[in-house]
Amino acid sequence: MEGVMLINGVRSSGLDAMDRGLHYGDGVFRTLKAVAGEVRWWEDHFRKLADDCAALSIPCPDRELLEAEVREIAAGPGVGVVKIIVTRGIGQRGYAMPAEAAPSRIVSGFPFSGRENRDVRVRWCELRLSHQPKLAGIKHLNRLENVLARSEWDDADIAEGLLLDEAGRVICGTMTNLFIVEQGGLITPDVSGCGIAGVTRSRIMHAAVQHGQTASVEPISRERLLAADGVLLCNSLVGIWRVAELGQKRWPNSGWAGKLRNWLDENN
Amino acid sequence: MEGVMLINGVRSSGLDAMDRGLHYGDGVFRTLKAVAGEVRWWEDHFRKLADDCAALSIPCPDRELLEAEVREIAAGPGVGVVKIIVTRGIGQRGYAMPAEAAPSRIVSGFPFSGRENRDVRVRWCELRLSHQPKLAGIKHLNRLENVLARSEWDDADIAEGLLLDEAGRVICGTMTNLFIVEQGGLITPDVSGCGIAGVTRSRIMHAAVQHGQTASVEPISRERLLAADGVLLCNSLVGIWRVAELGQKRWPNSGWAGKLRNWLDENN
Repeated sequence: MEGVMLINGVRSSGLDAMDRGLHYGDGVFRTLKAVAGEVRWWEDHFRKLADDCAALSIPCPDRELLEAEVREIAAGPGVGVVKIIVTRGIGQRGYAMPAEAAPSRIVSGFPFSGRENRDVRVRWCELRLSHQPKLAGIKHLNRLENVLARSEWDDADIAEGLLLDEAGRVICGTMTNLFIVEQGGLITPDVSGCGIAGVTRSRIMHAAVQHGQTASVEPISRERLLAADGVLLCNSLVGIWRVAELGQKRWPNSGWAGKLRNWLDENN
Repeated sequence: MEGVMLINGVRSSGLDAMDRGLHYGDGVFRTLKAVAGEVRWWEDHFRKLADDCAALSIPCPDRELLEAEVREIAAGPGVGVVKIIVTRGIGQRGYAMPAEAAPSRIVSGFPFSGRENRDVRVRWCELRLSHQPKLAGIKHLNRLENVLARSEWDDADIAEGLLLDEAGRVICGTMTNLFIVEQGGLITPDVSGCGIAGVTRSRIMHAAVQHGQTASVEPISRERLLAADGVLLCNSLVGIWRVAELGQKRWPNSGWAGKLRNWLDENN
């Protein structure tokens, strides 16, 4: 990885190696799209960051302070992605949370090298997401499941892997949220047992309802997904991917990906 | 936390903030007891470190190199604990493992402030360990479950919290492995679905068998634990804790804790 970085407001690339983010993955993160020095959906991302911090009892950094740092990084040459990490900071050795945590902020910028708003080929992952309601939904730093799932393929033509939970329900991609299209409505899986409640997922549901469409949270089996009119994947960087191929299955374009991309752009 | 540290062999306290150990908890760790400059059970710890690295496809550091670093840190004044972290190092942004990982080694030393070989009071934790066979047994850096479980109490008289899996089976403490004593034999839970397969746990099982005792891996319900003749907790730092109290339950000393402490010392 290369890029520019602010650690607790200081230009630096070195984090104190006693940080609990390293020792326990004791923190949360956000990945924001930056275009021409402006980050997209700052309000939503900050709100979700604050919610995730609260869920782990990590004091959330001051909003204005963090926003200034994010803007400084986003203004760097060629920056297309801003990543924010907030950890519980440095504490005593051991799992116990420090009585007064001084969280660490790591704000870094990268070029955007991904593929936005494309038709993609995907696959099923073998790894099953574990059920942990105390952590589900939160974009925390314990991401070994995602790392292992992403390591299941290295074919560059496959853009994403789909993950099931232990009960066989489809939950998400390794780095995306998932929607299926059925009879003109959108359906996305519940993420209260595993997975992440992403900002783009929320915005899509909101936009759909605003445009008079239905958007519901329901269990999605593998069979239901394969029988759907369309499958969409989303995150803040890649926007909306339309799944065109999954194994032998091909989906014609239902028109939903284009509609949703327009709706999301309206509310930038 | 305070202490001395070697990062990739260099005296430093700063880790590259792009390290995957921070971003994803993509690494493993070990905590070793150091007494008078010597670390205990180095062979076992290195073997487990190598196994854990292999399980995550992280190239394990060279044994002689790491041993020299561990010895250097252990020789520091007042060092009673040596912690080794090995991460997948720095990679591109994203979950995909780098094609050629250059792992990071962080070796740090601390005073030992814990309580070794004591009688302790413990409690039940509310958090249930999630089932993830791809990660179970490995001492990896995704430790938010332990952090959340440890945050359930702050009564200094309670030394440890006991954790169940989702099926209600007793698995371990937040930082210890667990044994029960029944009719003169030792029983410890299976850790192939969650929990960590600790070095002290292995050594206890080995020592018991060497001394003609039985040591088996079996499911342990809450009721079975409460009906047992004794409950023991262990790790490389605290040695063997005898559980004296759990809620209203009191256990008299079955004599096993003392025996096992002696047996472990024999094989230092």
